[in-house]
Amino acid sequence: MARLLWMALLIICGRTCACKISNDFVGAKAPGDVIIGGLFAVHGKTMTIPSGYPRRPAVQNCAGFDLEGFLQSLAMIHAIESINNSTFLNGIKLGYEIYDTCADVSTALVATMKFLAKVNSSGTIVESKRNYTDYIPRVKAVIGASYSEESIAVSRLLTLQLMPQISYSASADILSDTFRFPSFFRSIPSDIFQTKAMASLIQRSGWDWIGMLTTDDEYGRLAVEDFGRQAMAFNVCIAFRETLPAYLSDLAIDKRINSALNVIRDHVKVNVIIVFLKPYLVIKLFQKALEMEVNKTWIASDNWSASLQVASIPNINKIGKIVGFMFKGGNVSSFSHFLENLGKRDFENNRLLDQYAILLAGCSHVSEQDLYNCISDYTKGNWLYDAPLSQGSLREDFLIASVLPGFVYGTHLAVTALANAIRNLCRHRNCKKPGSFAPWQLLEALQGLSFTDGGKKITFDSKGDINIGYDVLFWKKNQNGSMDIITVAEYDCQENVFFFKESKRKLEFNALMNIKSKCSAVCTPGQMKKTSESQHTCCYECVTCPENHYSDQTGKENM
Amino acid sequence: MARLLWMALLIICGRTCACKISNDFVGAKAPGDVIIGGLFAVHGKTMTIPSGYPRRPAVQNCAGFDLEGFLQSLAMIHAIESINNSTFLNGIKLGYEIYDTCADVSTALVATMKFLAKVNSSGTIVESKRNYTDYIPRVKAVIGASYSEESIAVSRLLTLQLMPQISYSASADILSDTFRFPSFFRSIPSDIFQTKAMASLIQRSGWDWIGMLTTDDEYGRLAVEDFGRQAMAFNVCIAFRETLPAYLSDLAIDKRINSALNVIRDHVKVNVIIVFLKPYLVIKLFQKALEMEVNKTWIASDNWSASLQVASIPNINKIGKIVGFMFKGGNVSSFSHFLENLGKRDFENNRLLDQYAILLAGCSHVSEQDLYNCISDYTKGNWLYDAPLSQGSLREDFLIASVLPGFVYGTHLAVTALANAIRNLCRHRNCKKPGSFAPWQLLEALQGLSFTDGGKKITFDSKGDINIGYDVLFWKKNQNGSMDIITVAEYDCQENVFFFKESKRKLEFNALMNIKSKCSAVCTPGQMKKTSESQHTCCYECVTCPENHYSDQTGKENM
Repeated sequence: MARLLWMALLIICGRTCACKISNDFVGAKAPGDVIIGGLFAVHGKTMTIPSGYPRRPAVQNCAGFDLEGFLQSLAMIHAIESINNSTFLNGIKLGYEIYDTCADVSTALVATMKFLAKVNSSGTIVESKRNYTDYIPRVKAVIGASYSEESIAVSRLLTLQLMPQISYSASADILSDTFRFPSFFRSIPSDIFQTKAMASLIQRSGWDWIGMLTTDDEYGRLAVEDFGRQAMAFNVCIAFRETLPAYLSDLAIDKRINSALNVIRDHVKVNVIIVFLKPYLVIKLFQKALEMEVNKTWIASDNWSASLQVASIPNINKIGKIVGFMFKGGNVSSFSHFLENLGKRDFENNRLLDQYAILLAGCSHVSEQDLYNCISDYTKGNWLYDAPLSQGSLREDFLIASVLPGFVYGTHLAVTALANAIRNLCRHRNCKKPGSFAPWQLLEALQGLSFTDGGKKITFDSKGDINIGYDVLFWKKNQNGSMDIITVAEYDCQENVFFFKESKRKLEFNALMNIKSKCSAVCTPGQMKKTSESQHTCCYECVTCPENHYSDQTGKENM
Repeated sequence: MARLLWMALLIICGRTCACKISNDFVGAKAPGDVIIGGLFAVHGKTMTIPSGYPRRPAVQNCAGFDLEGFLQSLAMIHAIESINNSTFLNGIKLGYEIYDTCADVSTALVATMKFLAKVNSSGTIVESKRNYTDYIPRVKAVIGASYSEESIAVSRLLTLQLMPQISYSASADILSDTFRFPSFFRSIPSDIFQTKAMASLIQRSGWDWIGMLTTDDEYGRLAVEDFGRQAMAFNVCIAFRETLPAYLSDLAIDKRINSALNVIRDHVKVNVIIVFLKPYLVIKLFQKALEMEVNKTWIASDNWSASLQVASIPNINKIGKIVGFMFKGGNVSSFSHFLENLGKRDFENNRLLDQYAILLAGCSHVSEQDLYNCISDYTKGNWLYDAPLSQGSLREDFLIASVLPGFVYGTHLAVTALANAIRNLCRHRNCKKPGSFAPWQLLEALQGLSFTDGGKKITFDSKGDINIGYDVLFWKKNQNGSMDIITVAEYDCQENVFFFKESKRKLEFNALMNIKSKCSAVCTPGQMKKTSESQHTCCYECVTCPENHYSDQTGKENM
């Protein structure tokens, strides 16, 4: 396998491929009047270091090509090109500069420093100033980053220049805090709504007692905190909360996964596990869980609920049932058309595409079904990163089949929002000049912005979030022994309501939901369930309702 | 009062005081062969902005002079001068560059950018690079920051160059994660030990049911998480957890304080409240609590347990009882001697000292007792910040009386650790040359470093922390109607043991501890307490012990 990959590399690279890491590490770029930065986790981790932490101050090599992150970066390019090809900005051309963060905070920050560098400098000089009001950086706004932990660190730095940042997938609630993160926006809802939707779903399904698995970062910690609050309100008990390292490069990962699975196995009465993890962690977890024959109902958070990588784990259908939440997607037909013609295009500079082509070439021997896993193989490093542009096939069909509307729509919305703000800002100034506006002026134009996309009105709320709602996904075993991921319902954040588009889906879904925990208590009218966190007994008991409490909570829903 | 302050200012400043903010904002500096950066919260907040967040990208003005932060900055200068005046470094002279962060993340990051600027540049040029191995910044290491939220953001940026950072007071446990924060060290223990000590104290005192007040930042959130884990282990119930905004500049602060006090008042059976807040928040909280006649037992975290500002709130003795934890201090006689001679010294550049002198002059009319509050008055801005060096009195007696060993010892240890690492590193190189070593090399010299201080062996553990242990403080009403803060015991982190130096203290302390919650249950042998988080009933009940659980936990202690 490794030999095949090397051979493919030699064919593609010819003599020019030195495989060294260049000092610049831009993933893709194109010139324009207004440059927008992009941060995408096109790789899922940095290479593991034996000491557990770096010994030299340098960006680490990456591993684990992430097709979703790659498609998101292409969605940004597509959205920018669509605007440039229209008259929307009256001739102002958008450019881009995209970096692969490898899901790593330091890598994201090195890229962010490049965004903050002064215009007309060599592109590497950041001035340290007490007042940036009149400072014009090369980049005017940033799309990204993928993960909350990265986005928090990036936002801290961008705040110095009040440079607007719109993330398409960082969902930790703390990022809604405009006092701490005044230049942060996002094109998705905060996790406060996702945890509410989960608690609501769990309560209505009669699952009394659940477990939680999260990462040990802001994303996971805040999910536990948010869900804990919702669980109290919805009378749901949390039997255990286990955390796993947020980074695959962490040396303790296998030990912690084993320990979490032992906790799950010990809690025989707990049938439902909420999982707030990155896809790569879910893969490691499920591979081990399958070995241990663990079979549960898993509730998937947005970042893995639609992961084709997870869905293509061998024997995944033996893991139990999976229900997930995903940001609501929009129409992606225009993006599919863009992907269709990807191979015919001539990109000036897109190393991410080069790397994808090289990985594809290395995977030419595998079956259609295994292609996803072959490309994202975590044992491969990124020693191919600086290879020159390849002319090989790009398997556009495979890319189109891998597009998840919920993953790429957020990127599209983020670019569209920026374009609308730029249009408003540039009505009365000549934005073709580099110094025509500073980032903080664009930030003002974004605050509270409303615009239409595909006929729908989209608005940033007072916290800088776009609350587009969620799709509820259900993983269904198919005849191949793998899983199909289907949308069964939609969840409206504002109304706390689930909607079904088809009655067949509703029946299927209700059948799935009908799993009672072995320790549930049915209380008589006038009584209420009292929850306890003790791990030794069943967590519910019925007690007489105090004043102002009722034995049943009713809410609007049409499930 | 404002008029008096203006008059004092006019006398001191004469014609030269333009009161404008200069573009550089260094607080204190001195040249040297190896420059050490310092970050101290000499002010407690930035000025409140009506919109809740800044509209221009500029460092905000500060308010609320913090005498403890100011003394910590002087302790850094003292430690550096002591080393320079000795032969410890064989002629290598340490310099410093200290900034006032005003407890604000953005201000701390602007200062951090200055530390990262290239040597021999104008001091403002940071190069954005993929590899900093051969990059020589102006500063080689950083002491600080004060608070965990600042320290996390600063560490993210310093990690790019692997520049060592040693905090003297940031205690959030996450900073012990060497994978995320490879260049972070601290001269104090992680909060994981403090929360364990608190839970241990609470359990042994028979306080069944407690409440928690924390800030909504990493410090508070992790304290809740850590304490929650300890509370489970020690069978202590948490009746409520209330969070307050971490920043006084937050516009919602009064509303949230009122709401938290209402929760406290509604929980009549909860007598003990753990408070993880900054001193300024405690002042606001207690002022309101005194109005509402709330009287409880308060358990104080390190950052306010010895705060003279809190202790000097009028009628503070009516708030109830206060027990606190404080990092163990060392001998500060040499620092007191340094303070004694402060007025006779000629500092090249110390604007922090200037500002203190100006505030002192403005407070010359108030009584000894009110001096602390007058100086730190939060309604005063920092429009005096750029005044020239004053020749007024520095009230050295007042400064010496305000020194808290637990606050300044951490700063002393941090500088001493750096000096030891520099000595080891410079044995075989000429460190008088600016380019003789890069920060990452100093980092290597710090890892696992052991050294002696005052005859005691000090070691960084594998997580980069120095576990010096805690003093247990007891606030005792005195005859003036205010509080004296006395050390009653010591807590050993490793052994989970309290030690009393005097039997009188032990008796006093035990008398204080004997407060039973009104809902405690005494279980018969063979039974154990079962905890519940329900707010509607008493939180304990006795249940038959499952296997491997005993009705009583015994541990080493000599209380």
